[in-house]
Amino acid sequence: MEPTTPVPELEKIEELIETNQLEALQVQLANVHPADIAVLLDELETADAVTLFELLPIDVASEVLDETGSPVRQELVEKVADERLADLLDELPVNDAVEFLEDLPDEVSDRLIGLMEPEEAAEVQELLRYEEETAGRLMTREVAALRRHWTVDETFAYLRSLEDAETLHYLYVVDRENRLIGVVPLRQLIIAQPDATIETIMIGNVVSAPVTADQEELAELVSRYDFFGIPVVDEENRLLGVVTADDVLDVLEEEATEDIQRLGGSEPLDQPYFAVSIFQVFRKRVGWLLILFLAATLTGTVTSMFQELLEVAVILTVFIPLIIGTGGNAGSQTVATIIRAITLDEVRLGNVAAAWSREVSVGLLLGISMSLVGIVYIRLFFPEAGHQIPLVVGLTLPAVVVWSTTIATLVPTLADRFHIDPAVISGPMITTIVDATGLLIYFLLAKQLLGL
Amino acid sequence: MEPTTPVPELEKIEELIETNQLEALQVQLANVHPADIAVLLDELETADAVTLFELLPIDVASEVLDETGSPVRQELVEKVADERLADLLDELPVNDAVEFLEDLPDEVSDRLIGLMEPEEAAEVQELLRYEEETAGRLMTREVAALRRHWTVDETFAYLRSLEDAETLHYLYVVDRENRLIGVVPLRQLIIAQPDATIETIMIGNVVSAPVTADQEELAELVSRYDFFGIPVVDEENRLLGVVTADDVLDVLEEEATEDIQRLGGSEPLDQPYFAVSIFQVFRKRVGWLLILFLAATLTGTVTSMFQELLEVAVILTVFIPLIIGTGGNAGSQTVATIIRAITLDEVRLGNVAAAWSREVSVGLLLGISMSLVGIVYIRLFFPEAGHQIPLVVGLTLPAVVVWSTTIATLVPTLADRFHIDPAVISGPMITTIVDATGLLIYFLLAKQLLGL
Repeated sequence: MEPTTPVPELEKIEELIETNQLEALQVQLANVHPADIAVLLDELETADAVTLFELLPIDVASEVLDETGSPVRQELVEKVADERLADLLDELPVNDAVEFLEDLPDEVSDRLIGLMEPEEAAEVQELLRYEEETAGRLMTREVAALRRHWTVDETFAYLRSLEDAETLHYLYVVDRENRLIGVVPLRQLIIAQPDATIETIMIGNVVSAPVTADQEELAELVSRYDFFGIPVVDEENRLLGVVTADDVLDVLEEEATEDIQRLGGSEPLDQPYFAVSIFQVFRKRVGWLLILFLAATLTGTVTSMFQELLEVAVILTVFIPLIIGTGGNAGSQTVATIIRAITLDEVRLGNVAAAWSREVSVGLLLGISMSLVGIVYIRLFFPEAGHQIPLVVGLTLPAVVVWSTTIATLVPTLADRFHIDPAVISGPMITTIVDATGLLIYFLLAKQLLGL
Repeated sequence: MEPTTPVPELEKIEELIETNQLEALQVQLANVHPADIAVLLDELETADAVTLFELLPIDVASEVLDETGSPVRQELVEKVADERLADLLDELPVNDAVEFLEDLPDEVSDRLIGLMEPEEAAEVQELLRYEEETAGRLMTREVAALRRHWTVDETFAYLRSLEDAETLHYLYVVDRENRLIGVVPLRQLIIAQPDATIETIMIGNVVSAPVTADQEELAELVSRYDFFGIPVVDEENRLLGVVTADDVLDVLEEEATEDIQRLGGSEPLDQPYFAVSIFQVFRKRVGWLLILFLAATLTGTVTSMFQELLEVAVILTVFIPLIIGTGGNAGSQTVATIIRAITLDEVRLGNVAAAWSREVSVGLLLGISMSLVGIVYIRLFFPEAGHQIPLVVGLTLPAVVVWSTTIATLVPTLADRFHIDPAVISGPMITTIVDATGLLIYFLLAKQLLGL
């Protein structure tokens, strides 16, 4: 899967920079896609990356700037002259310029905006007024807006006059007040008679998103309706811009990253891995780790409550990690499945009973399987455990697994109901809850069956 | 965020079906988007869903069929006449028809293909020859293919003649042998003079994907280059079709689901949550649970090796869950971050040393924090533990956390190097590895410091 213009090899580039053959380097890069140059930049030493970046023509450089990873961006912001950066930002579509600026410290972004062309700067500032992660920030303002009385011929003339509409896939129709009243798929325009009016070929039902819509809802809309773009409107239904499928792709990747990091039990990093400082990573993780640590002290409390039991039957200790481990693992399996099903809107409070009965059934099957394996294991390797201990472990395992799948189903569903992101209910959290309660089940059963 | 055509309420629909007011129902559904009707179907009782589905005009029904969830699909396949289903499949773009058919049992899909229009059936069978999850299965074959000597006017005439090209966003240029030689962005075509030839406005460098490309690589390409579509070629560079951004969106969602389920420690379900039978879920989970169970017996072995130590100092038992829990949680946090970074190609074997040194630094900070909290906790609540035990726990915690973050960084990176999907290295797996080794560190330190 190679682009037809081959990307020069990293070693080749490094050699050209080292030997200062900058013209040869320009030739090498002449037809390479900006996205591929961005990847090269990410891989080069920072000084070399800056050298290479300075050689690029302005239109390529602006696209590269848009595509490159945060550590290189940071370097470029420091090393490249502000005037050139401002020129590059002028070249970018407004939403991409805003995306670049919003990651910078306020004083740097203010300085750069001050150096941009007044018109571009005004547009950037307008987008920056919308909240992060909303349609307002994500949308492209360059959008084709037709009037219902135009003919097809007039529409083509208008399209020709547009300087940089990012998507012509959908052409939106607005009234005199710029209110969205319809959409013309491009295909319709092409097959229509030149003198037909827009009115006769437009579709009156348009799915649109308010400018305040959360980016996750937008992604849901685009993915549900298989759109290439979705128009963004204000509260008066006036057309403000369009969010395109490729922007939504990036959002989906970002959201999946957040969910995965939360599931692992930490706050999402919000930035590429190497762009975050060690201290920031520490801060994102220490909170949950501490909460889980404190919750885990409960297991200590439970264990100490049964200290007399353990003094008489030390062998019970040997199986503690096995029991809480299996409970935790079964819980992790369930919680990952349920959280994803909630994200995809397959499970919600309304059908949680159905989900729960599935998980309990699966949990029972799993618990019984582990129980059989556990009994054989103890019989084989711990003959000194006698007859009662295998029974205790064999009964505890299904109980713990069923309990664990129950917790793992109900807690994230309830969280979702109360508008808490279910992904904060991480695997580690379920494991920790199950540790203490699982031990309690184990010790109570042991006390009962061993008659102690 | 409402579509401008309001979706009728579920209760309203149920009432109309119950009272057999089918014409009123048709009126209600007249302008509703097929994707919204699909959601309604998923929510209705199955009998009602079938009734409603039968009322839909064929073009709407085919889109609804494409959008609806698997349980309803299964129901429709059983209840709707084969002839009608075949008609609906004829209406769908070939790749969507294939996606529908590939989930059905072979005899059912063969029967339906037999009832389809010969031409459509042949195309379906051709796509079915490609492997699942490759560009061949995902691509749309209806694509605009221009010749270099055509004029702009001729091209418009050609576009008008196309019956159902799914995307006109990119127009590809091919030579006499149908080999891909260029691309014309639609915008260029619109602004060009009517008598200009395609040759003069086409771009000669096209990024394309081989028909055998894995869908994950495709998603990577589309997302990297911010494309709306990517042309698919055979080994001779002949144009076979196009994969559009909306298809890739679905792939990305699917892949994120797989990764999340794997991270939770089970095989991915590959289908919507409620579409999978309980026994299938059991099968997807029992393997890993068993492997983890067997690995967890190692912790039993470690504990039993130190049984004498535990008999003298039972209090050590109380802190076992705390220590292995914290180790496991820190490992889960790291593994989720690292796996996502590997997926996004931020971490690979080449820079694993940098990732490892980050994770160890963070681990050390986290371990020391937990250590301080742990010492205070033991001092406060277990005064009987004396001076040595807090020291043992306080030293064990940083060691276990650093060890755990190390495992969680190196194992998935190595897996990736050997072309094993790093997401199979789940949180539970790291937890289980850390359980046994963490205990070993704990007991060895205890033996040393308590002089036993």
